[in-house]
Amino acid sequence: MRYFEQHIRRVTPYTPGEQPKEAKIIKLNTNENPYPPAPGVRKVLQELDADLLRRYPDPAGEPLLSAIAEEMHLKKEEVFVGVGSDDVLAMLFLTFFNGDRPILFPDITYSFYDVWAEMLRIPYETKPLDSNLLIKKEDYFCENGGIVIANPNAPTGTALDLPVLQEIIERNRETIVIVDEAYIDFGGESVVPWIREYDNLIVTQTFSKSRSLAGMRVGMAFACETLIRYLNDVKYSFNSYTMNTTAIVAGTAAVSDRAYFEETRRKIIGTRAWTADKLRDLGFVFADSVTNFLFVTHPVIDCEALYTALREKQIYVRHFSKPERIVPYLRISIGTPEEMQTLLDAIKEYMEERGAL
Amino acid sequence: MRYFEQHIRRVTPYTPGEQPKEAKIIKLNTNENPYPPAPGVRKVLQELDADLLRRYPDPAGEPLLSAIAEEMHLKKEEVFVGVGSDDVLAMLFLTFFNGDRPILFPDITYSFYDVWAEMLRIPYETKPLDSNLLIKKEDYFCENGGIVIANPNAPTGTALDLPVLQEIIERNRETIVIVDEAYIDFGGESVVPWIREYDNLIVTQTFSKSRSLAGMRVGMAFACETLIRYLNDVKYSFNSYTMNTTAIVAGTAAVSDRAYFEETRRKIIGTRAWTADKLRDLGFVFADSVTNFLFVTHPVIDCEALYTALREKQIYVRHFSKPERIVPYLRISIGTPEEMQTLLDAIKEYMEERGAL
Repeated sequence: MRYFEQHIRRVTPYTPGEQPKEAKIIKLNTNENPYPPAPGVRKVLQELDADLLRRYPDPAGEPLLSAIAEEMHLKKEEVFVGVGSDDVLAMLFLTFFNGDRPILFPDITYSFYDVWAEMLRIPYETKPLDSNLLIKKEDYFCENGGIVIANPNAPTGTALDLPVLQEIIERNRETIVIVDEAYIDFGGESVVPWIREYDNLIVTQTFSKSRSLAGMRVGMAFACETLIRYLNDVKYSFNSYTMNTTAIVAGTAAVSDRAYFEETRRKIIGTRAWTADKLRDLGFVFADSVTNFLFVTHPVIDCEALYTALREKQIYVRHFSKPERIVPYLRISIGTPEEMQTLLDAIKEYMEERGAL
Repeated sequence: MRYFEQHIRRVTPYTPGEQPKEAKIIKLNTNENPYPPAPGVRKVLQELDADLLRRYPDPAGEPLLSAIAEEMHLKKEEVFVGVGSDDVLAMLFLTFFNGDRPILFPDITYSFYDVWAEMLRIPYETKPLDSNLLIKKEDYFCENGGIVIANPNAPTGTALDLPVLQEIIERNRETIVIVDEAYIDFGGESVVPWIREYDNLIVTQTFSKSRSLAGMRVGMAFACETLIRYLNDVKYSFNSYTMNTTAIVAGTAAVSDRAYFEETRRKIIGTRAWTADKLRDLGFVFADSVTNFLFVTHPVIDCEALYTALREKQIYVRHFSKPERIVPYLRISIGTPEEMQTLLDAIKEYMEERGAL
């Protein structure tokens, strides 16, 4: 084996949800927003002076950075933008998790955390959720090299009580605590204001879900100025210009339309409540979700087989083959009412065929 | 000092060229293309269905990946796309330079190489260019952990003779050799076809210069299928979706318009020849450039002072304060003939005022 073959970083990458191209598919597998982005997004892209594209974009992502800071009532020195929250989280792991102590996160959570840790050779330990798929706070009171908590959690869809989250942060003032709020806009309460109180807290959010901009790749981190400065130093040591001109203008247009944002997230929350009622009528079991998806299981029917059957009917939901504890579950993104009706009809038909109704 | 403060990755980031916003400025400091992107770029952005942006983009960057492969007469498994060639190079360093032996690159070259090495804690050694600012091939015949050569080199603007480059690759079949061809389209000869012969060769290129798309952030790497697979594994362990929808469609439009590409690069090469003649008439000294910039010095006038004087006249060129050997030089991007005339007039005036003409 040659020298270079011995020193390749060998990794097992994250497997994203399928991205089928057929237009007719009902796609409820990657937690995308069923509504288009704010009307201003289309307008700024249509009106963009293409001549500008010959120039490098603003390295800090201005004016998007300032627009986000204003919306969040923060200084722009407390904000970082990246190519989706995956890029932001990868940069955070690279910047802050360089010690020998293991970082901690739940066994059932966003399945990219262990991928980043493995890729960057960061020691880590997973802490099992309890039988209700909730965090046991005591698990995070031990010595550690950092903590990552998705709140609300994915794929479970539930949020921690804020006093519990606060106690975890309070007990870990020696290490960085990342709170990943990718789904916060669908009913959770953000801890972004806490960055003024805790100089070891970093909160991440994304435009991919509540802002309908998964295709533009815009994510962000919020933390005290010192941590954002270290993060920016690493970012500028990786790629001077991560946010392209179109992402900057589209993101700025999206963040400036608060009325549209409120309207679409309200619609999704409403569709979620309606869908949850119907799924419970069919015997599905699940905790109340504060996200744009439901994480469901059923005492009688095999959810993995249901996943395959739905797929054959052109309805894509998400099934995870690991960790083993969640094999009996499906993660179903909230689409339009019409899409959810089609899904419910298909599930009902499937159950009737099997005498399960 | 708290645990997390001790384990922050502390780095000195790369300093990109200034990006002044004033429209009147003549901007010859970051090697941007003076001509707009191909007309098809404007068209695809105007016609883009904004509703699509709620969906994640294709994780591999299709159809851009296939368009590049076709243009380069390669299989798409031999091509990788990223967020500008900086993102691509950072991923390459992360993927392939994980040994204890130092990687090698010239002392005067793209000033991001040492930044990536420092950031990723990769041992490195710089090899001094000779007094003509050319690579001494023997410097690269020693044991090493990898080699990075910008060809043509920046900021010197000259290319290696291909047999010399080939000898360097031949002598280093044990390690990865990266050839950074950011400026190849302005007169150099690409070694991309060599990836079929050398399974340790990786070539990078960018849309930022010859495709007028610095603002869209599109870069690429070419290598044998095996190396591209390892690179993709790391990329998918960092961020599933790096290329946003607009970069994919704009890049595809740019790469498909070969006539426009040929026309604009021919114009820039012509303007370069004309500008070079005029600068030599003014006493400037420099090697022939095969890039979209000239790297010039002058036996009498102080180029750093000239840089400052030009800046006061709203003409931005690039001056490097390190390494010390290049302090007497200016790097001047090739703009439109009108911009170059304005520059030449300003230099002439500056020299006349000082009795240097």
